Parts: sequence; structure tokens; C-alpha cells
Amino acid sequence: MTWQITREDLADLARGATLLGTGGGGDPYIGKMLVERVLGDGSITVLDPDELADDLFVIPTAQMGAPTVMVEKIPAGTEPTLALRILEEHLDRRADATMPIECGGINSMIPLIVAAETGLPVVDADGMGRAFPELSMETFAVYGVHGSPLALAGERGERVIIDTGDDDRQMEWLARAVTIRLGGVGHIAEYAMTGADVRRTAVPRTLSMALALGRAIREAREEHRSPFEAIQDTLASTLYCHVRTLFEGKVVDVDRRTTEGFAKGVARIAPVGGGDEQLEIRFQNENLIALRNGELVAIVPDLICVTESESAEPITTEGLRYGQRVRVLGISTPDLMRTPDALAAFGPTAFGLTEEFVPVEDLVPAPEIATNAN
Amino acid sequence: MTWQITREDLADLARGATLLGTGGGGDPYIGKMLVERVLGDGSITVLDPDELADDLFVIPTAQMGAPTVMVEKIPAGTEPTLALRILEEHLDRRADATMPIECGGINSMIPLIVAAETGLPVVDADGMGRAFPELSMETFAVYGVHGSPLALAGERGERVIIDTGDDDRQMEWLARAVTIRLGGVGHIAEYAMTGADVRRTAVPRTLSMALALGRAIREAREEHRSPFEAIQDTLASTLYCHVRTLFEGKVVDVDRRTTEGFAKGVARIAPVGGGDEQLEIRFQNENLIALRNGELVAIVPDLICVTESESAEPITTEGLRYGQRVRVLGISTPDLMRTPDALAAFGPTAFGLTEEFVPVEDLVPAPEIATNAN
Repeated sequence: MTWQITREDLADLARGATLLGTGGGGDPYIGKMLVERVLGDGSITVLDPDELADDLFVIPTAQMGAPTVMVEKIPAGTEPTLALRILEEHLDRRADATMPIECGGINSMIPLIVAAETGLPVVDADGMGRAFPELSMETFAVYGVHGSPLALAGERGERVIIDTGDDDRQMEWLARAVTIRLGGVGHIAEYAMTGADVRRTAVPRTLSMALALGRAIREAREEHRSPFEAIQDTLASTLYCHVRTLFEGKVVDVDRRTTEGFAKGVARIAPVGGGDEQLEIRFQNENLIALRNGELVAIVPDLICVTESESAEPITTEGLRYGQRVRVLGISTPDLMRTPDALAAFGPTAFGLTEEFVPVEDLVPAPEIATNAN
Repeated sequence: MTWQITREDLADLARGATLLGTGGGGDPYIGKMLVERVLGDGSITVLDPDELADDLFVIPTAQMGAPTVMVEKIPAGTEPTLALRILEEHLDRRADATMPIECGGINSMIPLIVAAETGLPVVDADGMGRAFPELSMETFAVYGVHGSPLALAGERGERVIIDTGDDDRQMEWLARAVTIRLGGVGHIAEYAMTGADVRRTAVPRTLSMALALGRAIREAREEHRSPFEAIQDTLASTLYCHVRTLFEGKVVDVDRRTTEGFAKGVARIAPVGGGDEQLEIRFQNENLIALRNGELVAIVPDLICVTESESAEPITTEGLRYGQRVRVLGISTPDLMRTPDALAAFGPTAFGLTEEFVPVEDLVPAPEIATNAN
């Protein structure tokens, strides 16, 4: 089903995308402002992946960089479209649509800026099904569509094209170097593909899922229902059907540094009333692993989402503050993100973790949130 | 006059190019081996800049990186031509000729590899008139031809295009980042221009000058004449007509480190027989400044060349060793390299030096080498 996004949807979409950002992905509220400015009272056409023509030509667009830098370095707004145009010129082919490479965080919004500026539709799918810190961590790549050639645009009109053939990690390695030298943020177009490729390699309907999540949280608050129940109810019918509460407490320690173009660190959460229990979350832009009293309770690629304990407002890595009351959720990812090839690309070992992947629904079997929500 | 380079010329050319490398520019002997392998018994056509058709399309080719790394990371030999082809495809125009961007060091040889592989002629000119550490330090840029778009090829077939418009320093900044991540060496095609541009912006006949210098040094040795007189005699009729001996002695200290893609450091030379005199040379890939007992005797862009005291064999920065007996020469550069615009691009301030440029012939007025050669 083809549907439309208008400015009224953007706040909900931003909220849902922040949740799917699992701590990273950049702040979608900045992206939201940029979309609003370009979109005005217009609307953006969203295409369902199942309805794409096989030969539709899709060029995904995104921003890359450390979220800690993105907060301070707001893009002019024209760079993502410039990145698309650079890739179109290089390939000598015009795009029929754009698409997120990452539905979590600001990269849920960047393709909407491009769509609003160019009139192109956006495909309701992405290649991460959440947020990941590296450009090579894509279901697209796992299932055979590679990122090269990548086009990268800088805020002063710099134009860079990187083609590393099938080696998406080398593409990431070189693009990251350029992004660091552009001041920490670059705008990119990459993983150009056909409609048939989208169906074969993308995580479907993650844009609509982010919007539905953000809307459900808001409506629950307005109606004084539990927003955590709303999250659970929304996800129940999606590919992300298992939701677990990993911990409730307050933030007692955040160790965070921006290094090599990433925001890396550790957060610790303890019970509000005191006690020996503790949740430790390690992150690289996104939350990677959660250990409760030293025992694994969730691990990448499953989602580890820190939220405000009353409102369920998602909190990003750079938004973590000492003393915050939080509930940490674990959310299962779709099967196509848990295959051996997928885990090799963005599972624990891809981040240098020694723990093996275990589905969050196996680590925390019960109770479901609905039964213990306050 | 059009002339031919054959394999018999390569050793002499390498020697002369090392002298013009002023300590840097990478080792041309590695480049020489690569040219020999491709050239065999063939020859390369060299075009005089004054005889180029106005609309001849010239794409210069080069290698970038720290010379200390180049010694250990010998290129496969096909990368420079790949860089040329990437730029041709990007511009949708075939090159009629290639050209050095830098006549000193290995970059005197790289265009010859391309010429031997492709059959293209080489233009007898360059944009540095010596060696410099950064891609923006070009007479091309000083006189209005900019480096973008730059094509960069890696040893595993990586293809990168960088276009920063008129901002050659930003081009250097981004290309350097990619080069570092490629392991320290990248192969580039940049500063595409017409024959008319070459005449307006290039330092003419530096390839033939390097060959003549190398040949003169060798023949003087064979005939037991002073190779230093031979250098002076060769340069007397060129744009590099002033030659001075800055110091004779032995190397007593070399402090050298590879940092941010450059080889930086300081060398100190003292009299062989002892004494308080000392020459200090500071370098960033190339020798930048020479101070004799703390007083300036030569400064970039003039050439500061360390040579073996008997044979006049030029010694590169990475070849400097404790105890070497050396004679250090100062050689004047052409007027087009000493204009205010030229000095802004590659004079002392471009390297963070606080000393002002003074021509070597004014700093060390007499005697000429011929009168005090041993």
C-alpha cells in the first residue's frame, strides 16, 4: 500500500526512530526540523516494498558520523540531495525513489529531506532494521547488494565518490576517514539497487513501524495508558514481536568518548532504591550489549533501548545523564538479521565482542512486559 | 623538441630526480624498476611544453604518501594507470598525454609507468619544480588550474574521486585521509589541463633537467671530474642557475618520525674534524629550512639537497644515517616559484615556518661551488 507522510507525522516518526536507534543513529529531531523546513504543507509518497516494480531504481540516502558531533554540527539540509545527485551523475542514471539505509535515528529522516526536495518517493524499508555504526552493517550487503559506488557530499560542496567493489568494509573504512576530515559528518548515497533487490535484501516496513511506534507511545501518554504496553502491542504484529524489560533503575555512571569517528563507552544503571543489582550497557554509537549482574540479557543485533521510566521516551547515548530514571527494553530483530551471514556482518564479533549471539526472547523468557507493566 | 626516454636513461633520471626531491618525493629507484618492467626495450615520447597544441588534454599522474612507507610498500605498478582511467571516465574525456605533478623523487617516474603502459606521451614539465609534501603545493594551482577532480586508486583496486572545486587544500586534506587508510600510499590523477594551461602554469623542462643532472653527475664520476662542478655547469643554463654549498660535514643526529602521513624531523650536520659549527635541516618529507649556526642559509621553496661528499649522490630524508659524510647544496628555484602567490602556496608560512623567504643566492652570495670544489 502506498501512503503519505505529512509534517503531522514527523514528531511520531522521530520518536519511533529514536527507539529503533537503540541509543545511536543520530538525533532524528534535528532531521525532523530539516524535513519540516523543506516539506511545508506538502506530503511525501511512501512505497511498500512488495509493490515496487522489479526494475525501479532506488538510491538510498543517509548521513554518516558520530552522533555526538551531529548534535553540534547541523547540516545545511542540501547535502543529502547533493549526495544523491553525485551518485546519479556517476552512474548516469536517475533515481526513481530513495530509501533509508538505517531506520533508526536521524537516518530515518534524511531520505525524507531528499524526497521533499526532489519529489521522489521513499521506499518503506531499510538495510539495518535499527541503527548500526558502520556502513557495511547492512542486510543489503549480507544478501548481495554492495554499497559501492558510494557518493559523499560535504557541507562546503565537497564531492567524493568511493568504489571498493564488493568490499563494503573497505568502503566504510575510506568513507569514515573522509567524514572525519569533513568535521565528523558526511552525507551519503550508496547501495543503489532495483526494486527486486529491495525485496530480496531489505528489512521491510521499518519506516511505517517507526511511525506506528512513535504514534502509539504518544497516544498512550495522552490517554494515560502504559506506553510500554503500547510498544508491545504495536510490535506484536511486526517482525520485532518479542519485547522484554531488561532493567528498571537510574543511570549511575556514563563513560563516553568520541574516538575515531565513533561515540564509544559504557553506561551503568542501578536500582532507584539501592541494592547490588546493576545493568551494564556497552555502546559504539548504538547499544551493543547489556549485562545484568554480569550476565548477558541482550546483545546486538537485538535492540537494547534505554527509555524514560514513565514516558517511555527513548534516550540516546549522548542523552544519557547521571540520575535519569530509565527502563531498558530488549526487542527481538527479524530472522533475516539473525542468520549466520547477518551475524557475521553486524553480530557480536563484528564489534569485537566475545559473547555469542543469543535471542533476547531466550535470554529473558518471561514475563512479558504486559504482565509486569506498572 | 620532442625526444625519447629509453631504459638507458632511467638511472640518470632517477639520480637527478632524487637531487630535485630535496630529501623527499619518495625513492625514484623503486619507480625506475617499475618503469623498466613495463617499458622493456621500448621508448617513451616526451613533449616540450612550448610545442603542445593549445587544446591537448593532459592528465598528470603521481603517487602520494609518506616516503618512509613507500620504501616498504612497493606498488603493483598498475595503480597509476588505473587512476588515470578513473579520471578519464569521470570526465568522459581521454587524455592525450600525461605529466608529472612533481619532478623530484618517485613522481618523476610515475608518469613514465603510465606512458609505457598506455603509449601516451609525457610532457616535459611539472607543477612543483622539485618535490613538495602536499598536493596543493603546485604552480598549477597558483596560476589558476585546480586539482579537482582528483582520482585515487588503491592497490586492491579501490577507486576514489574527490572534487573540492577550487579548494586544493581541502582536496589534499581529504585525499591524504584516504591515502593513510589505504596503508600510506595512494596513486592519483589530478590537475587535468590543456596544453595552453601547461604553458601558463607549469615549471617547464624539469624532466629533461633531472635527466641532464643525473647524467652529468655520472659522467663526471666516470671521468674523475668534480660532480659538484658538473651540477653547477648543468644548472647554469636552466631556471635553477644559482648553486651554493651550504655546509660540508658528517651527519651527527637524525630525528625522524612518520606522523599524519608525513615523514617529519630534523637532521644535524657537524664538521668532520670537529668544531662548533653546525647545520640544522628541518624537513616534512622534503628539506624545508637550513640553519648554519642558527642563521638561515636556505629556505623553501629553494632546494636544500644533501649529497654524499665525494660522489654527489643525493641522499633522501629516509636515507640519512649517523656518520654519513655529506655536502649540502642550496639551489635557487625559478622566478615563477617565488612570486607572492607561489610563496603563499609553498613558501615558509605554508609549512608553519616563521622565517621569511630569502633567495639562497642572497643568503650565500659567494663563493660559487666552482671556486671551492675539491
